[in-house]
Amino acid sequence: MIRVGYPSTISIELFRDFPVGIELIPISEKLDHDVKIDVWIPDPYPTRAMRAWPRLRGVRLIISMLAGTEWIPPLVGPHVTICNAQGAHNVATAEWVVGAILATLKYFPLYLDVQRSGVWKRRFEAPQYYAAITGDATPIYPPVMLEDLAGKRVLLVGYGEIGKEIEHMLAPFRVELTRVARSARIKPKVHPAVELDQLIPSVDIIILIVPATNETRGLIGAEQFALMRQGTLVVNAARGAVVNTDALVEALKAGKIRAAIDVTDPEPLPEGHPLWSCPNLLITPHVGAASPQMAPNALRTAADELRRYLNGEPLHRVVQQAT
Amino acid sequence: MIRVGYPSTISIELFRDFPVGIELIPISEKLDHDVKIDVWIPDPYPTRAMRAWPRLRGVRLIISMLAGTEWIPPLVGPHVTICNAQGAHNVATAEWVVGAILATLKYFPLYLDVQRSGVWKRRFEAPQYYAAITGDATPIYPPVMLEDLAGKRVLLVGYGEIGKEIEHMLAPFRVELTRVARSARIKPKVHPAVELDQLIPSVDIIILIVPATNETRGLIGAEQFALMRQGTLVVNAARGAVVNTDALVEALKAGKIRAAIDVTDPEPLPEGHPLWSCPNLLITPHVGAASPQMAPNALRTAADELRRYLNGEPLHRVVQQAT
Repeated sequence: MIRVGYPSTISIELFRDFPVGIELIPISEKLDHDVKIDVWIPDPYPTRAMRAWPRLRGVRLIISMLAGTEWIPPLVGPHVTICNAQGAHNVATAEWVVGAILATLKYFPLYLDVQRSGVWKRRFEAPQYYAAITGDATPIYPPVMLEDLAGKRVLLVGYGEIGKEIEHMLAPFRVELTRVARSARIKPKVHPAVELDQLIPSVDIIILIVPATNETRGLIGAEQFALMRQGTLVVNAARGAVVNTDALVEALKAGKIRAAIDVTDPEPLPEGHPLWSCPNLLITPHVGAASPQMAPNALRTAADELRRYLNGEPLHRVVQQAT
Repeated sequence: MIRVGYPSTISIELFRDFPVGIELIPISEKLDHDVKIDVWIPDPYPTRAMRAWPRLRGVRLIISMLAGTEWIPPLVGPHVTICNAQGAHNVATAEWVVGAILATLKYFPLYLDVQRSGVWKRRFEAPQYYAAITGDATPIYPPVMLEDLAGKRVLLVGYGEIGKEIEHMLAPFRVELTRVARSARIKPKVHPAVELDQLIPSVDIIILIVPATNETRGLIGAEQFALMRQGTLVVNAARGAVVNTDALVEALKAGKIRAAIDVTDPEPLPEGHPLWSCPNLLITPHVGAASPQMAPNALRTAADELRRYLNGEPLHRVVQQAT
C-alpha cells in the first residue's frame, strides 16, 4: 500500500477521485512525531509545508499543488522526484494577468480613491502619463485617465502553458504580441532570451511568466528598466526574483514605469519595505493562482500523476528526477 | 458653405480628416453672442454643451461624440436631426466592462487596501462570499479571496455594437453567455426583454449595455435584485437610470449582490449620496469610454456622417430624425 501524505488543511472530500490502492495520511504543520510516507503532497503554503518536512520519512515522490516548486529542492535535496501542478493554475493566473493589465490601464486604483473621497471627479493633471501616452506632455481632451489596451504592444516573456493561456485570453484585445522564451521557436515565432534587451524598448507592456531558475534570476534589472519606454507596464506573475527589486523601486519612484506584481523578492514583503509605498504599482500578495477551484484543480493533476506512479508509467510533470 | 460648430476644448488638429466644403467654428461654453451654424458637434461633456446651446442659431444636425444622446432631445426639441457616435467607443467601453469584472473577481479593491496597509495579508474571513461561491458558508482552502471568471454564467443585457464587442472580448474566458435584447433573435440566440426576470436567477454576472429609453428605465429594480443569486455581480456600463438606485443601495447594503458601475442616477453622484459608501461596489465616474483615442475615434465617425450630409446621402447613425 502506497502511503500518500496530504495537507491536513484540505478537506478529504477533495481526494475522492484519487486512485485506489493508496492510503491517505493527513500531514499537519504541527507534527510531533515522525511519519513514514512514500508520496508527499505539500501544503500549498510553502511555509507550512517546510515546517512539516523534518518529520517526514521515506518520501520518494513529491507532487506539488503549485506551478512553482523552486523552494522544494533546497529543502529536500536531490534524492526525491518532484512534480509540479503544471496545467492546474493556467486559467486563474492568466485571468489575474489580464485583470491586472486592465485595472492599471483603466486606472481603477485612482478611481477607487475618487470613490472613497465621495466626490465625483473625472479630470486629473498627470503630465507624466500624457507623456507616456502621446510622446509629449500635451494634455488630452477629455482629460480623463484611462487607456485602451487595444493597440498596445505586449512582450510576453515566458511561453509555457500559462504564457500560452495569457496569449489566448489577450487574443480579442487587438494587442501586438511578441513572444520571448529560453530558446527560439519558429511556429509561432518565439524570440530567444538573448534578444530580450533588443525587444524591450519597443513595447508598452512586459508580462513575466517564466519559471524561477538561475537563468531568470534578475532577468529584469536596472539595465532593462533603462531600456524601457516611459510608462511601460511591467507585470510579474512569475516569481519575485525574476525582477531586481532595488531596480524596480528606483524605476517606479522615478515615475518611469508602472508595475503590477503578484510576487515579490523578498516574499512575503516585510513591513516598511520601500515597494509598499511606490507609486504606479499594484501589489497582490501572491494570490494570482488562487480561486475556489485551485485545490480541486491541483489535486486533479496530482491524482493524474499518482495514477501513473502506481502503474509504473513515466510521470508527466517532473521538475526534478531523483538521483 | 456649411458651418460646423465644434468644441473649442478640442484641438483643431483632430479635424484634419474632415471633408472640404465646410467652415469649422469653435464653440465655447462661454459664448457671449449668438452664433449661426448648420451642424453642431457638442462638447463630450454634456454640462458644457448645454451651456453653449442657448447661443446657437440655425442648427439642423447634431453629431454627438458619444454613444448615449439621451440628454440632447430634451434640450433641442424635435426639429433637429441627431446622430450618435455609434462604433467609436465600442472597444474602450467593452474593455472597461471586462476590466471591471476581473477587478471585482480578483478582489483588487481588497488587495489595494492590503497594499496600502503595508502588511502582507492573504487570508480573509468573508462568509457571505464563501456562501456566494460554494452555496454554503464552508471556508475555502486556501482561504484567499479570488474567483475564476472561467465557468461563470453571464447575462448580457443589450446586444448592440458594444454588447457584441463585450461578447467578443469575453470569448476566451470560458463563460456561459446568455443574451437579452429588446426583441428576440435566432442566430445567435437572443432572448427578448420580457424573459429577463426568468433568466436573472440562474446567472452569476449581469452586464447592462442598453440605451437609456423609457423601456429600459428602472429595468433592474427591487424585484430583479430579489431574483438574483447571492453574490451576483451587476455591471452597469449603460446609463444610471437603467438601475433603480434605491434598490441598488439596498441590495448592496444587504450584502446580497456586488456591483461595478460607470454610471449613476443621479449623475454626477452628489456628495453624501449613500452609493458612495456601499460595500462590494466599484464606481468609476462615467469614464468607461474614455481614452486618448476617444476624441479621434468620435471625430472619425462625425466626419463620416458629415460627408454623407454634404453629399445628400442618408445618415447612418440617426437617433432622432428632425420633424
